[in-house]
Formats: sequence, C-alpha cells, structure tokens
Amino acid sequence: MKPINWKVIAQEGEARAGILQTRRSVIETPVFMPVGTQGTVKGVRYEWLESELDARIILGNTYHLFLRPGAEIIRELGGLHKFSTWNRSLLTDSGGFQVFSLTDLRKLTEEGVEFRSHIDGSKKFLSPEISMEVQAALGSEIVMVFDECPPGDAGFDKTKKSLEMTARWAKRSKDRFNELQNDGADTGFLSEPSAVAGGFGASSEKFVAEIYPPATADGSDLSGQQALFGIIQGAGHLELRKQSLDLTTEIGFDGYAIGGLSVGEEKSVMYDVIEFLAPQMPGDAPRYLMGVGTPEDLIEAVTRGVDMFDCVMPTRNGRTGGAFTSRGKINIRNAKFARDSEPLDSECPCSVCRRYSRAYLRHLYQTGEMLAAILISHHNLAFFLDLMQKVRDAIKFGAFSGFRKEFLEKLKENTPADV
Amino acid sequence: MKPINWKVIAQEGEARAGILQTRRSVIETPVFMPVGTQGTVKGVRYEWLESELDARIILGNTYHLFLRPGAEIIRELGGLHKFSTWNRSLLTDSGGFQVFSLTDLRKLTEEGVEFRSHIDGSKKFLSPEISMEVQAALGSEIVMVFDECPPGDAGFDKTKKSLEMTARWAKRSKDRFNELQNDGADTGFLSEPSAVAGGFGASSEKFVAEIYPPATADGSDLSGQQALFGIIQGAGHLELRKQSLDLTTEIGFDGYAIGGLSVGEEKSVMYDVIEFLAPQMPGDAPRYLMGVGTPEDLIEAVTRGVDMFDCVMPTRNGRTGGAFTSRGKINIRNAKFARDSEPLDSECPCSVCRRYSRAYLRHLYQTGEMLAAILISHHNLAFFLDLMQKVRDAIKFGAFSGFRKEFLEKLKENTPADV
Repeated sequence: MKPINWKVIAQEGEARAGILQTRRSVIETPVFMPVGTQGTVKGVRYEWLESELDARIILGNTYHLFLRPGAEIIRELGGLHKFSTWNRSLLTDSGGFQVFSLTDLRKLTEEGVEFRSHIDGSKKFLSPEISMEVQAALGSEIVMVFDECPPGDAGFDKTKKSLEMTARWAKRSKDRFNELQNDGADTGFLSEPSAVAGGFGASSEKFVAEIYPPATADGSDLSGQQALFGIIQGAGHLELRKQSLDLTTEIGFDGYAIGGLSVGEEKSVMYDVIEFLAPQMPGDAPRYLMGVGTPEDLIEAVTRGVDMFDCVMPTRNGRTGGAFTSRGKINIRNAKFARDSEPLDSECPCSVCRRYSRAYLRHLYQTGEMLAAILISHHNLAFFLDLMQKVRDAIKFGAFSGFRKEFLEKLKENTPADV
Repeated sequence: MKPINWKVIAQEGEARAGILQTRRSVIETPVFMPVGTQGTVKGVRYEWLESELDARIILGNTYHLFLRPGAEIIRELGGLHKFSTWNRSLLTDSGGFQVFSLTDLRKLTEEGVEFRSHIDGSKKFLSPEISMEVQAALGSEIVMVFDECPPGDAGFDKTKKSLEMTARWAKRSKDRFNELQNDGADTGFLSEPSAVAGGFGASSEKFVAEIYPPATADGSDLSGQQALFGIIQGAGHLELRKQSLDLTTEIGFDGYAIGGLSVGEEKSVMYDVIEFLAPQMPGDAPRYLMGVGTPEDLIEAVTRGVDMFDCVMPTRNGRTGGAFTSRGKINIRNAKFARDSEPLDSECPCSVCRRYSRAYLRHLYQTGEMLAAILISHHNLAFFLDLMQKVRDAIKFGAFSGFRKEFLEKLKENTPADV
C-alpha cells in the first residue's frame, strides 16, 4: 500500500490536471498550497481556509517549528494537525532552505549543518536524520528530504558538489524516514486513511467518486503513512539538473520537487529549467515547484508540466497592502484608492471582494489596522486558489492554451504605476 | 416620533434589563459595545461580529475618523455604515475624550479646542458644532455631545468650571445636532427604520415580538434620525456630579452617559459615583458608563443601575496575550501554558475555545503571529458579550444577586501569578 494516490485525469500539452489523494484529503492538481510557516497561515483563520477558501493542503516549516515551539512539544501534543487544529493535508519542508538562507550563521559538513537560531543565537544542528525525525513528530502527509540549497548564482563546480551531497542526504533521508515509519514515530499516522472529517471538500466529493472506483474512493488503499518527496537541485545548469534528477529518481520517492528556483535568477532561467526538467520527471508522480510564485509563474510552470506550488506571496504581499487581481497587482496604499468604492477585484467572488471597498481597505492599511492584512491576505489566497481552479477546469476542458493567453494578457492591464 | 425606543422589561434592585431599539437594531441591555475606533473592531472581522458574536451595536471614534480618513471621505462614501460595511447600530463618541488625552497638544477656549494631530502634527480644531457635523457625516445611531474631560484628579474648582463648560457645550451640541437632523446631514437616516437586513439578531426576534406590540415591533414608530446622548461629568465630587446631572437633564437628551470615570481614580471612587448618580438619572432613558471596564466593573455598575458599556479592554488585552476567563484573567505568555491542551476557558462556548488550545495560542503569541491577537480578541469579546447575556437573563429571572456573588467569587480563583 502506498501513502498517496496520484492520477492524471486530463492533459493538454505538458499541462496536467490530476487527483492527489493523501490519507487526509483529496487534492485536485495543479494545486497552490498556502504557506503556514509557524503553524498558521498568517492572518487567516483556519475556519476560512476550510470553508470559503477550501484549501486541501497547506505547508508547515520544519525550521521554524523546530526552533519554536520545538518538536518535543508538538510531538507531546499529538503532532502538528492536532496542535494547530488543521485536519486536512500538510506538507512540511525539511528546513534546508531556511538554514541555507542564514549565510553567516551556519557551518556545513557532510553530516549536516550547524547554525545559530535567528531567535536567540543558540547553536542548533539539523541533518537529514534529524529533519526526518522532526517531520515525523509534525506528522505531515508529505515530508521533504533534507537538501542543500546553494546560492542561485553558484558556479558549475560548486553547484555540482552541492547536488551530489543533496543526493547523499536524500538517501540518508529516505533510510531514516523508513525507519521512523516502521517505528510508528509519525504522529499523523491514520489506520483508516481519508476517514478524517472535513478532509474532503464538498465540491470534490462527487467528482472524486467518478474518478476512483468505489473500493478505493475512501482512501482505503492507502497505507496511512507519510509520503516522502525528493528534491532536484542544480541551479540554472541544465546538465546538473539532469544529473540531480537521475540521482534522485534512482533513490525513488513518492513525488519529486524542483528546488533552488525563484532565488534571484532571471525569470527566463527559471522557465528554461522547468521546461527542460519537468517533462523528464516521472510522469506517474506529482511534480512540485518549491516556493513559486506569481500568478504568471504558476501559469507558465503548469504549461511546462508542474502540478504543485507553494509561495508566501499571497500573505506576505497582503501584509504590505499588495493585492493580486485579474488585471494585475495593485497596492492599496496608492492615494487614488482613497475614494474608490470598488472591490479589490470586481471579478473576484471572495468574501472580501463581495463586501469591502478599496477605500475602506486603504483606510485600514493607512491607519495600521490588522484587518487590512487579514482581508487582503484572504483575498490574495482566494485569488490564487481560484486561479488554480480555473487552470484545472481549463485543462479538463482542453481549453488551457486559450485560457493562458487571455489570463496573461488581462494581467498586464494595470500600468506599472499601480504596482 | 423618537429616534430610539427604550423600555425596562425587568428590574432587580437597581439592576435593569431593557430593550433599546434604534433605527438599525434591537439591543438587549445591559449591553457591552465592542470598540471599533477606526472603523474596525481590531483584529475581528465583521463577519464574526455579526454571526457568532452577534454584537448589535459597536463604537466608532470621531477623533480618529476625523483625522483619518476624514469626514469628507466618509460622507462622500455614504457614511460609516456603508464605508465600513457594518449594518447594525453604531455609537460614536464626540472626540472630546481623545482630544483631552493629548495634554500637551491642545489649546482650550470657550469656542472649542485646537490640537495637533498625533499623526502628522498638523493643527486641527474641534468644537461642539464640528463634532456634531462629523458625527452626522458618520451617520451613527447614537451621537455623543462634545464634552470637556478634566483629569481624574482635578480639584473641585477646576472640575466645577469644566462641567459648566461641558453643559454649555452640551446645549450647543444639541442645537447644532437638531439643525443637522433638519438639514438631512445625517448619512445614516433611514426612512424605514429597522428595516435593515441583519440588524436584528435571530435570538432576539421572538423575544422582541413579545415585548413590542405588532405595530411598533418593526421600528415603524421611530423617526429614522440619530439620537443624542448627554454626558455627566464631575470627577469624584458627588456634589458636582449632581450639578452636572441637573444641567444635563435640563437640556434634555435621548440618553445619558457618565463620563470621566476609569481615568485613574480608585475603584471605590468609581463605584461610589455610579451608586450615587445612576439611580438619580432619568429612569426612562438608557444610562451609559463610558469606557468601562473589567468584568467586575460591569457587574458592579449593572448592580448600581447602568445599562450600556464600552471598553477597549477585550481587544487591547487580546493583542498582548491577556485572556478573560470565568476564573479570572490569564496571560498566554506564561510558560506554564506551553504544553496546556485546554482551551482558554473551558466554560466558554466560543469558536476559539471550542477549537484552539492554550499551548497553540501561546505558540502563536511567542512567534509574533497575528492569529494570536485575532483569536484572543475574539474570545475576549465573546466572553464580555456572553457575560452580558448572562446578566440580562439573571435580571429577567430575578436571580441577579446570586449570579453576581457566584460570578465574582469564581473570578478570583486564578492567583495573581497568572495575571
């Protein structure tokens, strides 16, 4: 029995619409996963994520939760689902990306990486084994291998050396991961997968019943354990990307991620890497582009064969007044919105756009009211999740190519002055 | 026709249960009014205030909204209800209290008060007339007269001089208020009062139908205009309180407020003033104790005959981790909550207590997550509103005296170390 089910249900060019079933939820792909770094999607109550926004999977961050409140407390309180009360699927990153962002605070060896906590400066250590242990304590549905993330502008040799260590770390991650699954260390283990209340969004139920034969529709063919995804590195060097892909698939994982993009490189480099890499990645497993990106990026990556995304952009921009709309990004701080009684996006059906005006949101932002961040983050998540729904529908109807063209053109309508 | 209906439906000692009907909602009293200083109750979406919390009336602040976004913009956008999307009742304070908190920034004359904006230092001017104009632009259901608020420790002579000016300002407030009502300056005017969707909470509908005869149950005997409340000053000097009361009732208002308490004086002084003053205030109009207070204060003031309250405490404390519970105040920062899987208050039926643990809330607070403030503020408001519901029920059942004793005893259970 496998930890996840994965099935492509429609394809147009390289773009794929699929169904990913974990022990806790059915996830239609391509999917955008809201980021819940510290066990909360910043500013948005779980009640909204479950109801109106209907997110089926969100992220948790090993690095942050390892430091606070610590794996011990979360394990003791029954895992991240129980601790945070999020009952649907969780994907946890390995902590690698965050640790390697602390350039001056770390010491890297083959064994792992020693670093100083950004909170209190205390010495900490993460390795493939420890990352797997923390992620077992978190009990996420999808665990990521512990990888090294070299700078985006690293040269060929440095990148090659790095990805080779990432591959060795991937093997160690998998070995320790398997031990932990056998030891029952996974706090999220479900003896009856997918029987979790609230895991299946209402809109998917009928659809899923049509895709899966009755015997498997309830997830009863799932193992109830965690899934493990490998990560492909190699920066902008296509030859190295291929080498990393081969090393990673050789080990074998439940899904594969593209790491090390959207770290400062040119957009064209990112798109070239995805275009080169995604179609060569195993077709029978989900492909996850880590930490990406703008609405344009999502569309371009789906076009090139990617199925899963995460990014802090909807909530981070939401906190600084940036709103994504079907006509491009606007910033609510702009004085021209002071008397604007229109919603953020007149085409958006979310609860924020149905109710609140730009003038009111601008007032909230200008007066430093928390509600500005709460409402704009909510809208941005609605926009991203709604976009992915439209992408999925377009692929299913064989209309993705036209949708892409129209969507990207409209997105350019707002002049740069609005951004 | 009057702007509000007011009726006592039960009394126990001085404690009164009543029904206050405005053009926009039916409000059972004693009532706690959440404070929405800048057009938002900090951290709590209106959707929650309307549904679970079922607040029927909230506050808006003339001083803050006068400075940002300014009366012009709010008037242009149709008033504070339309601007903020809050469709139920609003009470606006006059700006006096805030202006007189800016000790070093103001110049007081008989005409009014010149002050410097705390935002950009620009010169501003407020007078009884201007305050009425701003409150007409805001379109609140209950307008407060513009009063002078002397320091709580002001001597007899200074306090006497101040309350006499407050009385002259009250007369000017009423004159300008009446002109504005006649001129149609009130943005909240409703030609069919109480026909506002969502104004009446479901739980009250049956009850209200029993209180009001059918002909008046829909508010059709209301004028649709704003109501104006007078404010009684006099600090801790009972003789001056009586003088202020006489001067204020002589002018005549739709309701009467006690100002200038909870400004640093001893609790016993506050309770003595209320005990002396409230029973002498007109019995056929609501009595409003401004800016008060703790759960104990609410109980003590109800006991002495007060009907309406407002205070920033639930949301202000919520932002610093302070939670009100039936067993006293706790602060979620306390390390002992790190592994505590219990809710903030095991007796509280609010959506926060039904779902989230102290350990999770503490984690959110410690990591600086906005959700801590959002959830604790929500719980605190639920606690205050629920308390007032219990108070009303107790008065109606003639059981208030016993309820008061039991409630206050339980409140002391948490040791000071928890606070």
